Amino acid sequence: MVGATGAVGREITRTLQARGFPVDDFVPFASARSAGLQVSFRGRRWTVRELTDGWHEGIDLSLSSAGATVARWALPPAAAAGTVCVDNSSAFRLDPGVPLVIPEINPDALDGHSGIVANGNCTAITALMPLGPLHRAFGLTFLVTSSYQSVSGAGMKGIRELTEQIEKLHGQEEDLGSPDPDALPRGEVFGRTIAFNVVPRAERFAPDGSGFTTEELKMGAEARKVLGLPDLAVAATSVRVPVPVGHGVSVFARFEREVSVQAAREVLGQAPGVRLVDAPEPGGTGGAYPTPLDAAGQDDVLVGRIRGVPDDPRALLLFAAGDNLRKGAALNAVQIAELLVRRGL
Amino acid sequence: MVGATGAVGREITRTLQARGFPVDDFVPFASARSAGLQVSFRGRRWTVRELTDGWHEGIDLSLSSAGATVARWALPPAAAAGTVCVDNSSAFRLDPGVPLVIPEINPDALDGHSGIVANGNCTAITALMPLGPLHRAFGLTFLVTSSYQSVSGAGMKGIRELTEQIEKLHGQEEDLGSPDPDALPRGEVFGRTIAFNVVPRAERFAPDGSGFTTEELKMGAEARKVLGLPDLAVAATSVRVPVPVGHGVSVFARFEREVSVQAAREVLGQAPGVRLVDAPEPGGTGGAYPTPLDAAGQDDVLVGRIRGVPDDPRALLLFAAGDNLRKGAALNAVQIAELLVRRGL
Repeated sequence: MVGATGAVGREITRTLQARGFPVDDFVPFASARSAGLQVSFRGRRWTVRELTDGWHEGIDLSLSSAGATVARWALPPAAAAGTVCVDNSSAFRLDPGVPLVIPEINPDALDGHSGIVANGNCTAITALMPLGPLHRAFGLTFLVTSSYQSVSGAGMKGIRELTEQIEKLHGQEEDLGSPDPDALPRGEVFGRTIAFNVVPRAERFAPDGSGFTTEELKMGAEARKVLGLPDLAVAATSVRVPVPVGHGVSVFARFEREVSVQAAREVLGQAPGVRLVDAPEPGGTGGAYPTPLDAAGQDDVLVGRIRGVPDDPRALLLFAAGDNLRKGAALNAVQIAELLVRRGL
Repeated sequence: MVGATGAVGREITRTLQARGFPVDDFVPFASARSAGLQVSFRGRRWTVRELTDGWHEGIDLSLSSAGATVARWALPPAAAAGTVCVDNSSAFRLDPGVPLVIPEINPDALDGHSGIVANGNCTAITALMPLGPLHRAFGLTFLVTSSYQSVSGAGMKGIRELTEQIEKLHGQEEDLGSPDPDALPRGEVFGRTIAFNVVPRAERFAPDGSGFTTEELKMGAEARKVLGLPDLAVAATSVRVPVPVGHGVSVFARFEREVSVQAAREVLGQAPGVRLVDAPEPGGTGGAYPTPLDAAGQDDVLVGRIRGVPDDPRALLLFAAGDNLRKGAALNAVQIAELLVRRGL
C-alpha cells in the first residue's frame, strides 16, 4: 500500500478488508511526513513506513495511490524487481505498455502486462461504466461530457477546504446574490471559492494552450484506451462542485447504430457494477434518478436520466453518479488486484 | 409589478431604480398572502396590493414575475385592455403570437407584439447570450448543454431550503462519504438533498414520458424561437447545484462554418452584455475563467473556457455563467421594458 494515509489509500485499506482480499502481510507506505502513523487493518494497527529506495523488497503486489510524481519514481524499479503494481495515479495510464483496466469492461487488457497496471481517472471510470456496455451493444462514435466532480477528487484536503469555506459563508447565503469579491474565501486546493459555487477547472490547464484541463483530456484519452477506440471523438468539460464525495457526469453519446431508451435500459440493467436508477415520474417531480450523494458509499455506479435525442435516433443522453473514492479509485484498484491474483499475477 | 415580493420581483424593483426607469406611478401587486406588505422604491415605501380582476386599470406597462398559472389568468385581460405586459413566466414564451425577447439578440421580435412580451428562461438566456452572436457569425446547427443551476432559480424558498440543509449537515462533511440515506434532509422545493449534492432534475418531468424535464425542453424551444432556427437540434440536461445565485452552463455547439477559439473570442469580445473571462494559464491552475459566484450581482453574462474540439473544426466548447435573477430574469425584463418605452410601447 503506497499512499496509505490519503483519501483513496484509506478507502483501499477499507475495501481490501471488506472484500476479504488475500493478504499475508500488509505494509503501509506513505511520505516521510506520515511515516510513523498507524493504520487499522483486520483488527490490527500497522505502522506506516516511509517510501524509500528498495521499498518493494518482499512485496508481491502493491496498490498505490500517491501522486504521479511519486509513482514515476517508485513503481518502475518495483515492477522491474517483480512486484506487480496497481497504480491509481495518472503517471502510466497512457503508456502503451501499461494496461488501463476497468475489470467489468476490459479485463483482457491485463494479458501480458509488464508489472504495472493503471487504474483510471475517477470521472472517466464513472462515465465508462455505462458507456462500456452501451458501446458493445451500439458502437460508440462521439461523446460530449460535462462533469460534476466532488472535492474529495482532490483528496482529504479538498474536503477540508470546502468545510472551512462553508464555515465562513454559512449564514450569508442570501448575501451571496451580490458578493464582495474581496471577502470571498479562496483556498490552495481549488484556487477559487468552491463553497456555494462551481469551479469549471479541475487540475491544471494543459501546457499546449488548447484551453483544456488535464482532467478533461484524461476523459478522452482514457475512453479511447479502455474502449479500444483510438479515433473516438470526445469533448469533455470538467467542473468541480461543492459536494464532499460522489462524482456526477452528464453524457451525450452518439452510436453507430440506432438506440432507444428502452434498449439502453435493457443493456444497463444487466451490466455488472451499474445500477439503473431511472424511473422519472411523468408530469411530476419524483421517481428515481441518480445523485452523487446517493452514490457516495456505494460500490455501483448509478445511471439514470436516460433520454433519446429528438431527430437523432443514434444518440442518447444520460446522467451517471459514482463514488469517486470507491469505483472511481479504491474499488476499481482492488478489483484489478483480485483479477491479478486469480490469474496468478 | 406583479409578483413584487418574490426573488425576481425584488430584483426587478431594484433594477428599475438602479437604471432610472421612467415611472410615474409604481404599483406593486402580489398574492393575497403578501398584500399589505411594503416595498421600497425610490426612497418611498409602497404598499403591496392583492392581484384581483381589473388590477391593470390605469397601468400602461406591467412587469410580472408570478408563476405561469397566475400569468395565464392575469395577463390576457390586461393586454386586451391595453396594458403592455412583460412576463417572466413560461406561460406565453412559446405562444406564436408572443415575442420572446433577449434585447441584445432579437430586439426586432417586438415588432407588432399584441400586448404580451415574454422574458426567457434563466438558463436559456445565460446560454443564448454568447450563442446569439456566435450563431450570427458562424451559423449554429447543433447544441448540447449541461447546466449548473442555482437554487434561487426556484425562488427565495430555494435559498432557504439550501440554507436549512447546510445548517443540518455542516460539520459532517467527511461522514457524507458514506451517508445514512434516512438521515439526509429532503425539502419541498428540490425533493432530494440539495446541500452537498447536485440534483439532475429541475422543474417537472415532461408528461410525455420522454424523460426530459420541462426545464430541459425550454432550452431547446427557447433557443429555436430566439435564434429563429426552428430546426435547431438541442440536447439539454438541467442540474440543480448548491449555489445561492448564479447559473452556469456547459455548452457544446456546432456551426455551419469553421470556427476557431480566436475567432469566437473576437466575436464575444464585442458582444453587448457578454464579458469575456477567458485567459487560462497554460500549464497552471490560474488565469481567468468564469464561475457562478463571479457572475452573481453582475449584469453581464461571463463567458470563458472556450475550446476547439479536436477533429471537429466547426465545433466549440464554452462555459457561461450569469446571474439568474439579473440577466436571467429581472434585468432582461427591464431591458425589454426600456425597449418598449423607446418604441412608444
